[in-house]
Amino acid sequence: MEYRKIKDQDKEENVADIEDPHPKSGSGAGIVDKPKIGIQEGSEWKRKSLVTIALTVLTSSQGILIAWSKRAGKYDYSITTANFLVETLKCALSLIALTRTWEREGITEDNKLSTTLEEIKVYPIPAALYLIKNLLQYYIFMYVDAPSYQILKNLNIISTGVLYRIILRRKLTEIQWSAYILLCIGCTTAELTSSSDRVLQTPLQGCMMAIVMALLSGFAGVYTELIIKKRPSRNINVQNFWLYIFGMIFNVGAMLTQDHDDIMNKGFFHGYSLITACMIINHALSGIAVSMVMKYADNIVKVYSTSVAMLLTAFISMILFRFHLTLPFVLGSMVVSVSVYLHSKGKAPR
Amino acid sequence: MEYRKIKDQDKEENVADIEDPHPKSGSGAGIVDKPKIGIQEGSEWKRKSLVTIALTVLTSSQGILIAWSKRAGKYDYSITTANFLVETLKCALSLIALTRTWEREGITEDNKLSTTLEEIKVYPIPAALYLIKNLLQYYIFMYVDAPSYQILKNLNIISTGVLYRIILRRKLTEIQWSAYILLCIGCTTAELTSSSDRVLQTPLQGCMMAIVMALLSGFAGVYTELIIKKRPSRNINVQNFWLYIFGMIFNVGAMLTQDHDDIMNKGFFHGYSLITACMIINHALSGIAVSMVMKYADNIVKVYSTSVAMLLTAFISMILFRFHLTLPFVLGSMVVSVSVYLHSKGKAPR
Repeated sequence: MEYRKIKDQDKEENVADIEDPHPKSGSGAGIVDKPKIGIQEGSEWKRKSLVTIALTVLTSSQGILIAWSKRAGKYDYSITTANFLVETLKCALSLIALTRTWEREGITEDNKLSTTLEEIKVYPIPAALYLIKNLLQYYIFMYVDAPSYQILKNLNIISTGVLYRIILRRKLTEIQWSAYILLCIGCTTAELTSSSDRVLQTPLQGCMMAIVMALLSGFAGVYTELIIKKRPSRNINVQNFWLYIFGMIFNVGAMLTQDHDDIMNKGFFHGYSLITACMIINHALSGIAVSMVMKYADNIVKVYSTSVAMLLTAFISMILFRFHLTLPFVLGSMVVSVSVYLHSKGKAPR
Repeated sequence: MEYRKIKDQDKEENVADIEDPHPKSGSGAGIVDKPKIGIQEGSEWKRKSLVTIALTVLTSSQGILIAWSKRAGKYDYSITTANFLVETLKCALSLIALTRTWEREGITEDNKLSTTLEEIKVYPIPAALYLIKNLLQYYIFMYVDAPSYQILKNLNIISTGVLYRIILRRKLTEIQWSAYILLCIGCTTAELTSSSDRVLQTPLQGCMMAIVMALLSGFAGVYTELIIKKRPSRNINVQNFWLYIFGMIFNVGAMLTQDHDDIMNKGFFHGYSLITACMIINHALSGIAVSMVMKYADNIVKVYSTSVAMLLTAFISMILFRFHLTLPFVLGSMVVSVSVYLHSKGKAPR
């Protein structure tokens, strides 16, 4: 009845009680937390590192697959069907993992699939936030050109950090905040091109929309962490299963409104190729890795690992597709490296 | 006889004894040093801040004067005569300051102008190093183009830091080293233009020469600090006087070898204007400020203040001469700001 208990407390204490009551679940890299027993800390650290590395590798290979599929000119499948399949695959993988847990541990209060409205009523919120953000994306290009949008997207990093602090009430040290700001600057520097300067001429409406989009995206990420961490002992695969069920429902809506005619005329799998299949598998695995990072680490770790992945993608693309190495990329990567070092160096003393 | 004593120690203990034995002289921002008495520390800090701010303001206005003189198209005076006048003015100003000290304190062992060969035999070394560096400058352009040279000049920051550590044996904390690397990256980013990427195609000879030049320039700076701090109780104006005497001698040499004919035919003051006079006064005052920073702070503070000055110059030039604000400049300035913050935040606990 641990779940009930936590929920009841929550009514009085609001979201501040998100700090894990259960020692098994993640503590978040560099978050000020209480001293724990050595061995537990070690296995926690190992699990956190594992999911972080998995996310970094999957996100980098995702970028390379996208670049590859674009170069092969095969991008004529319907994106909404692909997204639906990603959600379905994630759901299926969560179920497979769950059946293995049931075989091993039997069905318990924490790993049973059945749920209450109380538990899942907040699950559609992140999916809804992403939907609103994606809709806004169509309008922002009325005010902002593509190279400027590429630069403005880095506001996500800042918004995630600020909302992480406000909503999850987790603390970063001053050195870690500096490192986090540097992460944003470094990512932006690495993406500089000769047309990036145009961003300085962005009209006020464009800036406002970019900020709203960054806040929506940051809020969706932080809210997912809030949901997943709310009940630390709850099996992550059950939580994922329900999150992805709502993902499937939202994507059915998108398929029907955006690609209904195409799917009816050309078929569901029109334009699919081996690369498309690889991309779907990769997206599904990265999605699960994101959830794992949220459960065992936090949004800050997620932002670091996707940022490092972005640089890895660009670097590998340079080798694979013979892109030129640019000085801004070199400088930006150096800033990101120093930022990663400072983030770990700036940990609050335990 | 304090001077003799320090010199004798030095023979056995090498340069490591540079750590100020006299509590009145500067301690260097963020250097690991021993606890001192509160009031003394306060007045030290005040003096250090004062000379640092003076250096920053003078260096920024220097950049603006150069930009102004270039725009006014008045750059046809002989640079060697101007440099000679700068050294002469610095000498004169040091003498004026000295006479006031003599009136106030009387002539002591520390503020007397007369010196020994033992004391001044190392004084020509920084001037000689700068001369070699300036001669190399003519050859480097055989391998490196101007925009690349602009970028490579930032290696000075790194070489000064490394030599500061090796020769002066002063320690920076890990956070301060990170900050220092960021200072170099930030300055480079702020100077990025569309042609900066060429630096990545610099041939090996060009890179080697750039590194040698950076080492020469860094060594000259660190060696000046070594000379000035060697005898902390010695009056800075006496030390300056002798340094500038050698500066004058080296510049007479440069005038005779480079501009002899021009000076003979057109006259010593040919092409001088009000701006030239302002520039000479400004250079002289900045030169004195650099010495003061070396005496009461250190090379790291000097590098920080000239780097911040470079950004201030660029920013003020944008307003005065309507240059465009560029995104790399904005990002680079942000990195430098975070670096300054981290440098002070990363101080070793006293």
